[in-house]
Amino acid sequence: MTLIDGKAISAQIKQEIAAEVAEIVAKGGKRPHLAAILVGHDGGSETYVAHKVKACGECGFKSTLIRFEADVTEEELLAKVRELNEDADVDGFIVQLPLPKHISEQKVIETIDYRKDVDGFHPINVGRMSIGLPCFVSATPAGILELLKRYEIPTKGAECVVLGRSNIVGKPVAALMMQKAYPGNATVTVCHSATKNLAEICRRADIIIAALGSPEFVKADMVKEGAVIIDVGTTRVPSTVTKSGWKLKGDVDFEAVAPKCSFITPVPGGVGPMTIVSLMRNTLLAAKKAVYAD
Amino acid sequence: MTLIDGKAISAQIKQEIAAEVAEIVAKGGKRPHLAAILVGHDGGSETYVAHKVKACGECGFKSTLIRFEADVTEEELLAKVRELNEDADVDGFIVQLPLPKHISEQKVIETIDYRKDVDGFHPINVGRMSIGLPCFVSATPAGILELLKRYEIPTKGAECVVLGRSNIVGKPVAALMMQKAYPGNATVTVCHSATKNLAEICRRADIIIAALGSPEFVKADMVKEGAVIIDVGTTRVPSTVTKSGWKLKGDVDFEAVAPKCSFITPVPGGVGPMTIVSLMRNTLLAAKKAVYAD
Repeated sequence: MTLIDGKAISAQIKQEIAAEVAEIVAKGGKRPHLAAILVGHDGGSETYVAHKVKACGECGFKSTLIRFEADVTEEELLAKVRELNEDADVDGFIVQLPLPKHISEQKVIETIDYRKDVDGFHPINVGRMSIGLPCFVSATPAGILELLKRYEIPTKGAECVVLGRSNIVGKPVAALMMQKAYPGNATVTVCHSATKNLAEICRRADIIIAALGSPEFVKADMVKEGAVIIDVGTTRVPSTVTKSGWKLKGDVDFEAVAPKCSFITPVPGGVGPMTIVSLMRNTLLAAKKAVYAD
Repeated sequence: MTLIDGKAISAQIKQEIAAEVAEIVAKGGKRPHLAAILVGHDGGSETYVAHKVKACGECGFKSTLIRFEADVTEEELLAKVRELNEDADVDGFIVQLPLPKHISEQKVIETIDYRKDVDGFHPINVGRMSIGLPCFVSATPAGILELLKRYEIPTKGAECVVLGRSNIVGKPVAALMMQKAYPGNATVTVCHSATKNLAEICRRADIIIAALGSPEFVKADMVKEGAVIIDVGTTRVPSTVTKSGWKLKGDVDFEAVAPKCSFITPVPGGVGPMTIVSLMRNTLLAAKKAVYAD
């Protein structure tokens, strides 16, 4: 069994990005600039955004954190989005989700200029990804594919079972895994709350990508000997042993499942760190105008 | 075994649309207007466009057919697309594919205003469909779902195997069949040229949607007793018994497979006529500004 070390791979990719940025800057080019909008003080969101800002530093990016209180109006938030769309110094930006209920997340996403949409959530980027055109691929699916690639895991013709059909992970990773490319070219099955015989379907899989948000959902008897397991789950569960009072749990019963696998990602330290470097890579691509010429 | 009569269903839907159009016009509203651009004289394209123009008449729509010779430049074609984008009288329009090799189909598609893109090929419509937002759903996938609905075929939790991963049929129909809606909510597997054990995967399926363009590919031993078969294939094969010298063949070996099915679409007369009425429905939606307000 090989443990997929997302932390090590992501550190390596950040170094690669930092080296490229140093070269760009040395040649007189502009330092990539990522802006992040954070609304309110949700603990998870605070942590994610702090990690993103830190990663920007490690990659040699400029970063700007824009904060709003939870009672910001939708119009104020949209005005800021439009301002960032117009700001030539900002290469890409994100609005950290979730947003307070009085604000339409979809409206915010669609107001972001798709050429600066480094989260890859705008319908144009989603559509272009599905068609197979150059685009900003959303960070978690991109991070998963990068792990498969760095560990040279064969995917062509593999049976890949995706658990979950969210817009952020399940659907896009399914779309990518079925594309005629590496990693990809897999026979993809998407399972969800209405799926029958889920355990049986999982047992067919050469690769399981679990993105349900249901702690330890995938048990050992659902996994074929030698399968590859990618665990996207990151649910906070109460813990008496951590200082914070909680810890992250994946969608996979790691202790029981790991011995059966050829490859498996841990939680934390698997997909999570890759998500952040994928955002960094998208920001670099935006700065280089490598996806959209203008 | 029930034969799914796409011809009868499509006739019924055209009547429903015509009734709605009559009502709109009686109330002083504008008659829906579909424009079609046809480049060159490909036999298949000529036939498709003629059927679309005829269907417009049956639905009470105004239609405009714009022809270009095969040597039209890309810029001339794009200029016409932009003109139709601006023409307030045109509610929706299509550019019949395929286009000559010197013209970028993707560029043409992306130049169409997505609010008039009744073929549903623009990345914005593809992306919105994937996310589950209101959009123009491309005609063939929409027609397939309409057939499942009109025949009240259960789809929730069904194993649905899609053969083919084209941007026009395979990928979008897979996206629709996995959505939390009816028809949909199925456990969807997408198979393609790299798939191993394809026959075995097909045998698991409660619903097979065959969109490979490979005549009589699906044989009886690949089909579970009681399965639902949707045959999207329409390959022209030589024939000595038809006046034209050819006939349409589906992706399914109909004679052998039909006796095992609970429902099956014939070719012709199954999915084909539904594709055209889906285009008509999209045009009606465009005229009513029911998808995009403006």
